[in-house]
Amino acid sequence: MEYEEPKFFHVMQYAAAADGDVIDMVSGNPDWEPPAALREALREYADLPPADFQYPPSDGLRELREAIAERRGVDPDRVVVTNGTGEANYLAMARALDRGAGDEALLMDPVYPYYPGKTHLLGGEPTLVPTARDGGLDVDAVREAASEDTALIVLNTPNNPTGAVYDLDAVREVVGLAEAVDAVVVVDEVYDRFDLAGSFESALTLDSDRVIVTSGFSKSMAITGLRVGYGVFPEAHVGDAKTRHMLVNVTGARPSQYAVYHALAETEPDYYAQSRELLADRVDAFTDALDAAGAEYSRPEGAFYVLARFEGFPGTMANVKRLVDEAGVAGMPGEAFGTARDEWIRFALVTPRATEAAERLADYFADGAPETPADPR
Amino acid sequence: MEYEEPKFFHVMQYAAAADGDVIDMVSGNPDWEPPAALREALREYADLPPADFQYPPSDGLRELREAIAERRGVDPDRVVVTNGTGEANYLAMARALDRGAGDEALLMDPVYPYYPGKTHLLGGEPTLVPTARDGGLDVDAVREAASEDTALIVLNTPNNPTGAVYDLDAVREVVGLAEAVDAVVVVDEVYDRFDLAGSFESALTLDSDRVIVTSGFSKSMAITGLRVGYGVFPEAHVGDAKTRHMLVNVTGARPSQYAVYHALAETEPDYYAQSRELLADRVDAFTDALDAAGAEYSRPEGAFYVLARFEGFPGTMANVKRLVDEAGVAGMPGEAFGTARDEWIRFALVTPRATEAAERLADYFADGAPETPADPR
Repeated sequence: MEYEEPKFFHVMQYAAAADGDVIDMVSGNPDWEPPAALREALREYADLPPADFQYPPSDGLRELREAIAERRGVDPDRVVVTNGTGEANYLAMARALDRGAGDEALLMDPVYPYYPGKTHLLGGEPTLVPTARDGGLDVDAVREAASEDTALIVLNTPNNPTGAVYDLDAVREVVGLAEAVDAVVVVDEVYDRFDLAGSFESALTLDSDRVIVTSGFSKSMAITGLRVGYGVFPEAHVGDAKTRHMLVNVTGARPSQYAVYHALAETEPDYYAQSRELLADRVDAFTDALDAAGAEYSRPEGAFYVLARFEGFPGTMANVKRLVDEAGVAGMPGEAFGTARDEWIRFALVTPRATEAAERLADYFADGAPETPADPR
Repeated sequence: MEYEEPKFFHVMQYAAAADGDVIDMVSGNPDWEPPAALREALREYADLPPADFQYPPSDGLRELREAIAERRGVDPDRVVVTNGTGEANYLAMARALDRGAGDEALLMDPVYPYYPGKTHLLGGEPTLVPTARDGGLDVDAVREAASEDTALIVLNTPNNPTGAVYDLDAVREVVGLAEAVDAVVVVDEVYDRFDLAGSFESALTLDSDRVIVTSGFSKSMAITGLRVGYGVFPEAHVGDAKTRHMLVNVTGARPSQYAVYHALAETEPDYYAQSRELLADRVDAFTDALDAAGAEYSRPEGAFYVLARFEGFPGTMANVKRLVDEAGVAGMPGEAFGTARDEWIRFALVTPRATEAAERLADYFADGAPETPADPR
């Protein structure tokens, strides 16, 4: 599979250049307020002495690492603070692929496009493994795909793009399979605060030395631009992860880490509950309209996204562009997420206009799929 | 050569744990004020709407890229804003080593320890090339070392640790050698604002498609913790550099980029002149005291550092620890910088106590090198 990430930018540029009013449901940028304590800490930081403008420790500000470790119930020495969850995934996947234990990475299909991209960058070979119709983990498919060449299995729960929250027993079985073929399991839990159905359990509770958990604050604090993520590594891998982090980035940005530390310490659970409720309301309104449009969809158990399928209107780039031009709604083509959902379109619910977008879709598909334009040849 | 970076931390920890008062001349963190406009921009940022807390463009805020391009006299499309100069060097070295044009990296000796570390990470093989006694570029030595297997030549000017500023004609000759063996030349110019002798010229003036220039604001704005650097890539390499940047880091921290953009636009030349003068005064005071101590040294033409050699007291880790305990001054052992200066010790002049440290050294070495303690066996 090709590295597909540029498609995000392609759709966003197409939508921005469109004539009419287009509702952007492409990007995964939260549209709500960051925690008040985060803004306050940035203000405070601006007045700190010059020494506080210098390198934090390479693995992150000590108080931040300790706060993360406490929340996650792990030893602070296992935590590496990274430049967003993106870097944490890069370090974790590098660790798995650098052990001389094989080149193959098993990625669940549909797949977040950065995972195959990172796999190729690191010299690995991605293999897409089907998931269940609702996006849930298909342990038998993982078992069938796993071999001596498998070095890495990447899971993402709550899942982008399907909204599935993996059952912990299924994750445990996958970790068992990983053990049998000497693979490392990377579990990206960046949407853990958006557990809409209340069923999410972290893979850290498995307490396995095969599991690296990655996460960050981009989504939970509505700060994708601050770039604060982290990896929780087993003892055997944390030293190498820290070395790679140092050689690539030296360290992450200190104002961001300072602000996130204070926001983590001072933000009440209510803040997270409110964004979760906001999303749940949007899911209700959006799926009601999808019903009206006669679309198939799975109701997300977590994360920000709804995958929808409109009969006779597959999720190609061409159809996504038609939706931009003719319905005024921009989504992501399912074909950008591997092979499993090329009939589908992903809509990100991080816009205050989600309901309006849903109504536009309901109107557009009211009389079934629009005619396919005649082939110009 | 082993990856030596941890020695910095080893010496800093040793100095911090020492009984008496120790002057830290180990780390390269500026000790002066960042620009006022930078603090002001951070305050402003704290009150921006939520959309400004989300991902900046992957290659950096547009206005920042344009300001850098204007200062550097290049097309903005060639500029990638990175997480510090460290990431810029990683991207640049990766580009050189990823072309299938060989595995060898020529690094000038003495060498900044991150360069061999990054070379190994990227699957390359470092070869150390001697420089002149004063740290200047030895073009004949580069010619002798270059071969068909050479994919990368790394230069750093103004130089850490020697303080040498490379003659532009010598750099041009090295670029010519690179062309002959299909190598890429990475020129790290992060100390370009600390051109104490006024002789620095950027390698960008060579206008060569073999040259990648890296730099950043960590040193010039006294903000090593903000992590804003950049690479200026030839057209043929910029696309691949952007892809790797996206796959590793997605993008850099937006508050930091916002603050640096405003500081760049609003800071008068006077600010940079003042830090340069402060350093020049410290060089005078420090080298006077080295004269009094009977030490050999080269007067730095640029950057922050003085390399000094004390007769009968080579720059080993053991001797550096003795200086911490017996003289109250912490430097970096020359053996951490390759093979060329293992008799020497590096002192970073980014402390207000540089003069005091120099006096301590003068006192300590007043009657020649201290006796080597008897071997305990």
